[in-house]
Amino acid sequence: MQAAQYIGNKSFKIVDAATIAPQEGEVRLDVGYVGICGTDMHIYHGVMDQRVNPPATIGHEISGVVAELGKGVEGFNVGDKVVVRPLDYCGECPTCEAGYSHVCQNLKFMGIDTPGAFQNSWTVKARTLHKLPDNVSLKLGALVEPLAVACHDIRRANVKAGEKAVVIGGGPIGQLVALVAKSVGAEVLISEVNDARLDFAKQYGVKTINPMKEDIEAYVQEWTGTKGAEVVFEVSGVQPAIDVMTKIAAVRGRICMVAIHANAPQVDLFQFFWKELELLGARVYEREDFDMAIELISSGKVSLEPFISSINNLDDIGQAFANMDGNPSGMKALVSCQQS
Amino acid sequence: MQAAQYIGNKSFKIVDAATIAPQEGEVRLDVGYVGICGTDMHIYHGVMDQRVNPPATIGHEISGVVAELGKGVEGFNVGDKVVVRPLDYCGECPTCEAGYSHVCQNLKFMGIDTPGAFQNSWTVKARTLHKLPDNVSLKLGALVEPLAVACHDIRRANVKAGEKAVVIGGGPIGQLVALVAKSVGAEVLISEVNDARLDFAKQYGVKTINPMKEDIEAYVQEWTGTKGAEVVFEVSGVQPAIDVMTKIAAVRGRICMVAIHANAPQVDLFQFFWKELELLGARVYEREDFDMAIELISSGKVSLEPFISSINNLDDIGQAFANMDGNPSGMKALVSCQQS
Repeated sequence: MQAAQYIGNKSFKIVDAATIAPQEGEVRLDVGYVGICGTDMHIYHGVMDQRVNPPATIGHEISGVVAELGKGVEGFNVGDKVVVRPLDYCGECPTCEAGYSHVCQNLKFMGIDTPGAFQNSWTVKARTLHKLPDNVSLKLGALVEPLAVACHDIRRANVKAGEKAVVIGGGPIGQLVALVAKSVGAEVLISEVNDARLDFAKQYGVKTINPMKEDIEAYVQEWTGTKGAEVVFEVSGVQPAIDVMTKIAAVRGRICMVAIHANAPQVDLFQFFWKELELLGARVYEREDFDMAIELISSGKVSLEPFISSINNLDDIGQAFANMDGNPSGMKALVSCQQS
Repeated sequence: MQAAQYIGNKSFKIVDAATIAPQEGEVRLDVGYVGICGTDMHIYHGVMDQRVNPPATIGHEISGVVAELGKGVEGFNVGDKVVVRPLDYCGECPTCEAGYSHVCQNLKFMGIDTPGAFQNSWTVKARTLHKLPDNVSLKLGALVEPLAVACHDIRRANVKAGEKAVVIGGGPIGQLVALVAKSVGAEVLISEVNDARLDFAKQYGVKTINPMKEDIEAYVQEWTGTKGAEVVFEVSGVQPAIDVMTKIAAVRGRICMVAIHANAPQVDLFQFFWKELELLGARVYEREDFDMAIELISSGKVSLEPFISSINNLDDIGQAFANMDGNPSGMKALVSCQQS
């Protein structure tokens, strides 16, 4: 079989590799499609070389078909369509014991810290698998992982029907957060500086604003009748978003921190006190988030076809990454990893 | 009757004033004791002159006895011992309509925005009153208001029995937060740089640390078996507390923001993402917090006598404020406002 290896400096090579027989509790998958995540783009740009240690096979937004079962695996059969929740937790640290294994203190993120899915065959622990219903294609299956991120965010922020939610940042995750918020009955506004991404949001009937062109604070004041937004998702990672999030949130509003802010931005903590705001950090997903994401796709409550902006074969993986590079309107590039 | 008026520049004068007959829905109180709050100290130092507009009668931590009932007041009788929840809300703004009248958009804080309690007689809306049980003295009754602040903080942070809580800042509110957290079954550590305040905490059997002398991060790591503290209360208002709060909190830990940070400090938002932390702003109190505070005193679950560091008569109110000025070991100065 073939595997793609990231070799540093925006480059991949395709190598011949042996399939790995599943050990006890493991399953070998024939890989279907693998999506390119923002983190994969960071790896591509070389900023995570120390962590991934190239040459390395990356990729974690995967759909596939069960090809081989290791000993003791129950609940799956050869031929089942599945997706992988790519979290390898220890099960023993205080965090796992407290029930938060998704943010385990010794977490290995599969496809970053351990080998990933950009290959024809991938062998993983059975506990990471979720079955796909018949009516969900392998292509859409590759979008379950990023959709589960959004489901986790919505569950962390406890979004309820009838609430008004602002999503700051209209990249792939921001757009998915907006759709999931909408699916539970919230009214959603996406704030984004790139017009192509605003156009993308509009096709879903979501309100949009470009905060470089319009006053978002005034807009939210009017939209909410001076109350403010019950929920704000910060998915942009920039200081102006931190400045505005506390201004547009209602009294007792929940602000969900999805973006990564590595350099300790200034936060208006006075507003947290004054309006009794709540800030909720959200990272990856839990089992329930994958279940919710699969149900949203299967039931047709969210329609993700427009997110697929390109599909390349595994031996064209370099092109797939190049498609996404500096292309704000491209939401999700898929790599078809099916053995030819 | 006599009333104390703050006249600016750390000064008060005692004036003769007429009692105010209660209108419909109002009650006139014979004032018992009035505590001096940190906010009163700010007023005393002149930094809130624009808001209080001297000459002004301030004071809002009050106990008293019902002296006269206005029309339509039910549930109270002349002679009842009461305390006042000093929040005058509009009842009509979106925040009041959402059920958060304690942080009403048009809130008038009685004793700051409207006349206060440093006088023999105070006329207030009956809806602000809570009855004191027979076994709670008027002296301890004057501590219900600050204790209700602490009850609100504990309820906002949803502190549960068996949890480990760190209180950063050992002033009067920090000490009360520690006691209420202890009363619901939490293990509590107070972090404070002033040794007199640490000694005060020790008499309640609370763990203490001086972060200028010991490494609080290492201490909490060991204390919690590397898990971190389930709850952190930031009651100090300084940047080093903001720096440490995210470090000592457990995964999914709750950080309750009690202190006022007026100048947008730097916050390690990456830790909020990474550990899925929660930040909860907490301001003043709700009706339930007064009920809880009164029950805690009446039942003997918290014993507040040691908090009373001085008692002066109304005509010595200047001395009462001077007692507190630059005196970190003084927890609560009371002014006896009973007509002589």
